[in-house]
Amino acid sequence: MPVVSIEKVGEHDGKEVTIRGWLYNQRESGKLLFPIFRDGTGIIQGVVSQKENPEAFAQMQGMTQESSVMVTGTVRADQRAPGGYELHVTQAVIVQKIPESEPYPIQLKEHGVDFLLDNRHLWMRSPRQASILRIRAEAIRAAREYMDGQGYILTDSPIFTPAACEGTTTLFEVSYIDDQKAYLTQSGQLYVEATAAALGKVYCFGPTFRAEKSKTRRHLTEFWMLEPEAAYAHLEDMMVLGEGLVSHVVQSVVKNRARELETLKRDVKKLETVKPPFPRIQYDEAIKILQKSGKEVKWGDDFGGDEETVLSSQFDRPVMVHRYPTAIKAFYMEPDPKRPELALGFDMLASEGYGEIIGGGERMSSYENLVKRIREQGLPEEAFQWYLDLRRYGSVPHAGFGLGLERTVAWICGTEHIREVIPFPRMIYRMYP
Amino acid sequence: MPVVSIEKVGEHDGKEVTIRGWLYNQRESGKLLFPIFRDGTGIIQGVVSQKENPEAFAQMQGMTQESSVMVTGTVRADQRAPGGYELHVTQAVIVQKIPESEPYPIQLKEHGVDFLLDNRHLWMRSPRQASILRIRAEAIRAAREYMDGQGYILTDSPIFTPAACEGTTTLFEVSYIDDQKAYLTQSGQLYVEATAAALGKVYCFGPTFRAEKSKTRRHLTEFWMLEPEAAYAHLEDMMVLGEGLVSHVVQSVVKNRARELETLKRDVKKLETVKPPFPRIQYDEAIKILQKSGKEVKWGDDFGGDEETVLSSQFDRPVMVHRYPTAIKAFYMEPDPKRPELALGFDMLASEGYGEIIGGGERMSSYENLVKRIREQGLPEEAFQWYLDLRRYGSVPHAGFGLGLERTVAWICGTEHIREVIPFPRMIYRMYP
Repeated sequence: MPVVSIEKVGEHDGKEVTIRGWLYNQRESGKLLFPIFRDGTGIIQGVVSQKENPEAFAQMQGMTQESSVMVTGTVRADQRAPGGYELHVTQAVIVQKIPESEPYPIQLKEHGVDFLLDNRHLWMRSPRQASILRIRAEAIRAAREYMDGQGYILTDSPIFTPAACEGTTTLFEVSYIDDQKAYLTQSGQLYVEATAAALGKVYCFGPTFRAEKSKTRRHLTEFWMLEPEAAYAHLEDMMVLGEGLVSHVVQSVVKNRARELETLKRDVKKLETVKPPFPRIQYDEAIKILQKSGKEVKWGDDFGGDEETVLSSQFDRPVMVHRYPTAIKAFYMEPDPKRPELALGFDMLASEGYGEIIGGGERMSSYENLVKRIREQGLPEEAFQWYLDLRRYGSVPHAGFGLGLERTVAWICGTEHIREVIPFPRMIYRMYP
Repeated sequence: MPVVSIEKVGEHDGKEVTIRGWLYNQRESGKLLFPIFRDGTGIIQGVVSQKENPEAFAQMQGMTQESSVMVTGTVRADQRAPGGYELHVTQAVIVQKIPESEPYPIQLKEHGVDFLLDNRHLWMRSPRQASILRIRAEAIRAAREYMDGQGYILTDSPIFTPAACEGTTTLFEVSYIDDQKAYLTQSGQLYVEATAAALGKVYCFGPTFRAEKSKTRRHLTEFWMLEPEAAYAHLEDMMVLGEGLVSHVVQSVVKNRARELETLKRDVKKLETVKPPFPRIQYDEAIKILQKSGKEVKWGDDFGGDEETVLSSQFDRPVMVHRYPTAIKAFYMEPDPKRPELALGFDMLASEGYGEIIGGGERMSSYENLVKRIREQGLPEEAFQWYLDLRRYGSVPHAGFGLGLERTVAWICGTEHIREVIPFPRMIYRMYP
């Protein structure tokens, strides 16, 4: 009997197949059982008739939720069934029956979020959580496909770093070998600036760490970032790359994970509009929009979550805000030669109020100006010697950005909290399981 | 003038193009200059004639190595030129000239390895190092392509973990928030066992950490692992997946990075044979082969680098050694029901003496047996409660493996030391730059 996955069961309509998985739920109705099976690729409803298949009926009757089973039966198209097919079960092999005395902890009812997070290793079996994880995987696949297709070479940045990129307050310290100290990377940017000078167009895509005591729905202590960097590239190049990347990721999910978006009850129409060009507005203009909408902001202020929500809800696709005041941006940002009080940087705010998913821009390429900024900000000059070498030896204009994976996936999924879009979320007081 | 990358210059034969990059080297011969440019995608030789282009000649004459330049000229096919094309330069714009008084530190001569590692951020610009990094990127791309194509869903494992998977001696400790302690992951395996029970077939692919004081050419403290895990899978399934994955990665590099392998002077014939099926030998047989070749090993011993080298040099492609003694394998390995003193595990040893690149097998699915092993080995039972839940609730046979990225890429590149195959290697006494 061919073993098939539930997502491909439609290719075997009318034929007998074996499915290996778990019992998601079961309803009994007289001499019929209606089990629902899951195998990680989807769910399918079965029918077991006591009259026709007394042995299978005896095996399955009273079977507990999440017990592991292998079932054989005939696939029948049925429009009423979720997924469009039913399995008429002829044989059932119980791999492990969970005893009724110690049932599966996550019942088919509402549970508190702390309980669910404590049981994250089981919670992810639920259709909603499994769908989110499958969407995350597709978003990553599509993102890499896009970058590779644009000629960007993946160069992984190190996790252990000798010093902070952007200040020390949110750094995790590691006890390295023989009483040395290391710090966990907060961004691979400085490193991809080096690899860009070697390979032209590069990106890194890995975990990054922030010891922030923020308990908001947008914060994790461990999250993934995709960071492209290109030699001889400018602000506008990065805005074009950013809108191309984000729209490719969104449209790939819409196309290849339609069933999962349906499970999440996501309004796909709001994703289908996410196509280039994305609107671009200058910081100056953003301030005016915010003031008009009643926000108390003045020129020079940075934007918080509230401001981002107001700005992003003005458009049907992500908006790029560029040329923020130099004073509120990182030390390595190149100032606009026409208005040096502005930095050649941009943020991309996701639509529907989801806020920042990309931040980036042009990097300072002058050795003298960069040293000046490092000193002004009181950063450890010694630790930046290798970074300054990139300006000493063959400096070129270059630009890049960082895309926050979890914020992007949370927006695509329409989830409120980013803790659901990573398999094992790490937060201030959570690193179990 | 179209800006083109050097790797695509052949598409513009006879036409005028602009190349943006760096001066790799330059030879002067009377009224002609022969600069070699690099832009990260390749190198191309130029010709500048004082007679025909006096301005470009004046710009380029005496130009220093690694200075950044944008040059415009006509592409001419020339079989003698490296890469097959030359650029007849008509215009040169110097972006940054490195002063002769403070030249580029890495001259075109032999340097000591410590000096090169101290200057890793510059060393990677050399043709050999740049080729290795491009091969690494292709290996990763191909590996993900293969796993995705086989229906495996990427589920990233966490970096912060509450306890050790396989003992505590090689763990890195992190100061977490509010005096909590976290440990850096040594393997994502336990976590992908959870996601496999949710999604069926999964893999993780990220950095892992070992605080080993080993100073061998095969050790890094930070390295990347690809770890597949599949529900309802057995030892043989993983051997088939492993040989499929490794051969796809090797053949993709052979096909898509031929020029880089040539730069490394790699004997490609030895890679072309890397196709399934790979030979499989049992541990019992491996012991006999080692004894015959004069090694002093006895049944029950684990293999070190020397033994791996002897075994792997017997074959023209990687060899899989399976069914090692249970006593020398990890606590979670499933014993062979026919011979419980053997574990249902396997190692894949790369050819040409490169040693282990994969280790894996079938996991213990019985709750009782797993608890027994955890207690026997004195592991912290409390920390493994969530892992034991996977056996309490719907346990199924399952299997997986871990592929060490850097060891695989080092073998493909034919490099002696794995420190060259990661952009920024981290070793016992090295985390700068």
